[in-house]
Amino acid sequence: MTAPTLDDVLAKDAADPLRSFRNRFIIGDGADDPVAYLDGNSLGRLPKATAERLRDVVEREWGSRLIRSWADGWLDLPERVGDLVGSAVLGAAPGQVVVADSTTVNIAKAVHAAAALRSDRRVLVADPADFPTDRYLVESVADQRGLKVGWLADGAGALDTLLDRGLGDDAAAVLLSAVDYRTAAFADVPAITAAVHEAGAVMVWDLSHAAGSVPLSLDTDEVDLAVGCTYKYLNAGPGAPAYLYAARRHHERLDNALPGWIGADDVFAMADRYVPAPGIRRMLSGSPYVLGLVAVEEGVGLVAEAGIEQVRAKGIALTELLVALADDWLASYGVEVASPRDPERRGAHVVLRHPEANRIDHELAARGVIGDYRNPDLWRLGLSPLTTSYEEVWLAMQATREWFAGP
Amino acid sequence: MTAPTLDDVLAKDAADPLRSFRNRFIIGDGADDPVAYLDGNSLGRLPKATAERLRDVVEREWGSRLIRSWADGWLDLPERVGDLVGSAVLGAAPGQVVVADSTTVNIAKAVHAAAALRSDRRVLVADPADFPTDRYLVESVADQRGLKVGWLADGAGALDTLLDRGLGDDAAAVLLSAVDYRTAAFADVPAITAAVHEAGAVMVWDLSHAAGSVPLSLDTDEVDLAVGCTYKYLNAGPGAPAYLYAARRHHERLDNALPGWIGADDVFAMADRYVPAPGIRRMLSGSPYVLGLVAVEEGVGLVAEAGIEQVRAKGIALTELLVALADDWLASYGVEVASPRDPERRGAHVVLRHPEANRIDHELAARGVIGDYRNPDLWRLGLSPLTTSYEEVWLAMQATREWFAGP
Repeated sequence: MTAPTLDDVLAKDAADPLRSFRNRFIIGDGADDPVAYLDGNSLGRLPKATAERLRDVVEREWGSRLIRSWADGWLDLPERVGDLVGSAVLGAAPGQVVVADSTTVNIAKAVHAAAALRSDRRVLVADPADFPTDRYLVESVADQRGLKVGWLADGAGALDTLLDRGLGDDAAAVLLSAVDYRTAAFADVPAITAAVHEAGAVMVWDLSHAAGSVPLSLDTDEVDLAVGCTYKYLNAGPGAPAYLYAARRHHERLDNALPGWIGADDVFAMADRYVPAPGIRRMLSGSPYVLGLVAVEEGVGLVAEAGIEQVRAKGIALTELLVALADDWLASYGVEVASPRDPERRGAHVVLRHPEANRIDHELAARGVIGDYRNPDLWRLGLSPLTTSYEEVWLAMQATREWFAGP
Repeated sequence: MTAPTLDDVLAKDAADPLRSFRNRFIIGDGADDPVAYLDGNSLGRLPKATAERLRDVVEREWGSRLIRSWADGWLDLPERVGDLVGSAVLGAAPGQVVVADSTTVNIAKAVHAAAALRSDRRVLVADPADFPTDRYLVESVADQRGLKVGWLADGAGALDTLLDRGLGDDAAAVLLSAVDYRTAAFADVPAITAAVHEAGAVMVWDLSHAAGSVPLSLDTDEVDLAVGCTYKYLNAGPGAPAYLYAARRHHERLDNALPGWIGADDVFAMADRYVPAPGIRRMLSGSPYVLGLVAVEEGVGLVAEAGIEQVRAKGIALTELLVALADDWLASYGVEVASPRDPERRGAHVVLRHPEANRIDHELAARGVIGDYRNPDLWRLGLSPLTTSYEEVWLAMQATREWFAGP
């Protein structure tokens, strides 16, 4: 194809049905704001409503209302915001999601709980190409519970491995990422979940790069447990709390490896023994992280308002544009698109492979094009549908082409 | 003694060397602000500097600087703020404290790590009167590791039990609270720690009600591990992250039961296997909770500026005033001071016992006197030295006396 011109992409922005959402975020005037912010999959932009909400929560709810705010709504935040995450991006009916703790802590809770649901089995299955935290935690949980880790074949797709070889009859649980943090490969969630169930194991999905970028149907797909972070496509800010989904059918037997008073049946009874709350609240541990929770509520609210189908459509269009420009302008410099070519099997980021990826990342950042370097030779570019414009994608690729062409 | 008059306590406030600190916090004009806010040990007041700092972090650091802020200082926050907590209130040299996660999660990490340090032993010792989360977690960790829980004798002080009967030769670790969440009893930290070491066990202190209210010397006392929350006397706001202290001598063997990439030696190497960071950073798990961390930094900064000796002196004076007024005005209504009489063995809150404690708590709150009900018959009144005035204590006891006297 002929690469689109700047006028072409400006026309795309003008016709973008999500165009108005970009104005709902803080976007600088160019003095400090990047030329192209393609790292919304590491840290999403700040919604204007979040800045206002945080001021109100800090100054009025904390500053003036003080302890009374716990009863006025703070205590309910993990479940209320969880329900919103569930309906907006997870395909989950109410009462199955809480927002609390870090993604790390939630992965640990989910894998412990999954292993406990099949405590008669001895293997936890994981992907050797998964994000480090996921791999570290599977090894740690296995070690703590006296289980073994079964690594999927390196290099092969998780689905291929599962479907070709099966899981054996000793797999207790499987942890996989729905969208790969490097390649953006979007796993076939229903097929893999079904294959895992076929083998009698419990499926845990890490949705960190998937929620808010691709459509998910956890209830329909009969996923068992899922976790993910909120500071990427859900725009909840640095270190915002993560979500944990557990299908209602498991609640009665769901074990929290980090039990605390907030997850106890009667929080203020200060009971002698831990009696877990009957529903998903049993997966809470410590005091709700209020500032982070309201930021999740505002950020996810914008995705809910836009609708995940619209978000997905724009995500595909943005990644298609980036792939086309990279092919057209950068292939001759040895840049390879390392993400899936099929947009249906790709999340909302694109990774480019080049031996000098680290240098490209640094030097393009100095020119206002912000992406992410991933060891050893990947330059990851995140396209966040609510905030990334077609123009930004074009300018980023144009700047990269100029960098390769040299002075 | 003759109970002090309102003029007497106003004179005390006027002479208070910490008087200027009250103006560093948001304190309402009476329309919504309580007559007496005696719940700063549940949720401390909002420092004005925190409100400003949060606006800057949200609007400039997140909104404009975006992902660049991680490299500009966010990544260092858990250790930097940890060092400040260590020097301001823990008596800990740098490099031994991180601020991250909830108190619940940190207790779990600390107890797991302590048990791993004495993995040849089979008993975790805990106090049946401790805060529920502490008890639940000791049982949970014991269950996960195949250990037993050894409960100290109910009703007896922990020190008495330990000194009288010893711990036996199979105790791996002991978890106790330095200041009791109900009675405010301040444990003899050095003596108990020494007794635990005598028995060859590892000592873990929960300092939630102690840090920022009583002097602590974790290094000098050779404490092994300690944890606690920051939203009480450290004024860091609802759900702010907790701290975890581990003595340097243990770092090399310190095991994190929730390993994540942020605690790995080379964070961005995305290594095949988890290699923990050499120092206290290995106790981190997920992405730092930035908004909470800067709130801890501001809140603890005020305690550091005031100096813990001054804070302790005022805490004793405030609790002495409350005890004197309760004795004088409320004893005839059946109200009993259930906190230690010796101010040296008491934290900065006082608990009053009365069969109608729950009703008193509710009805006094309606009159602007905010305390905390604790099951079954305790009314807990927190006196936060940087923000509580002598006048508030007087007005609270006066209102309570009027409530008992009836209309």
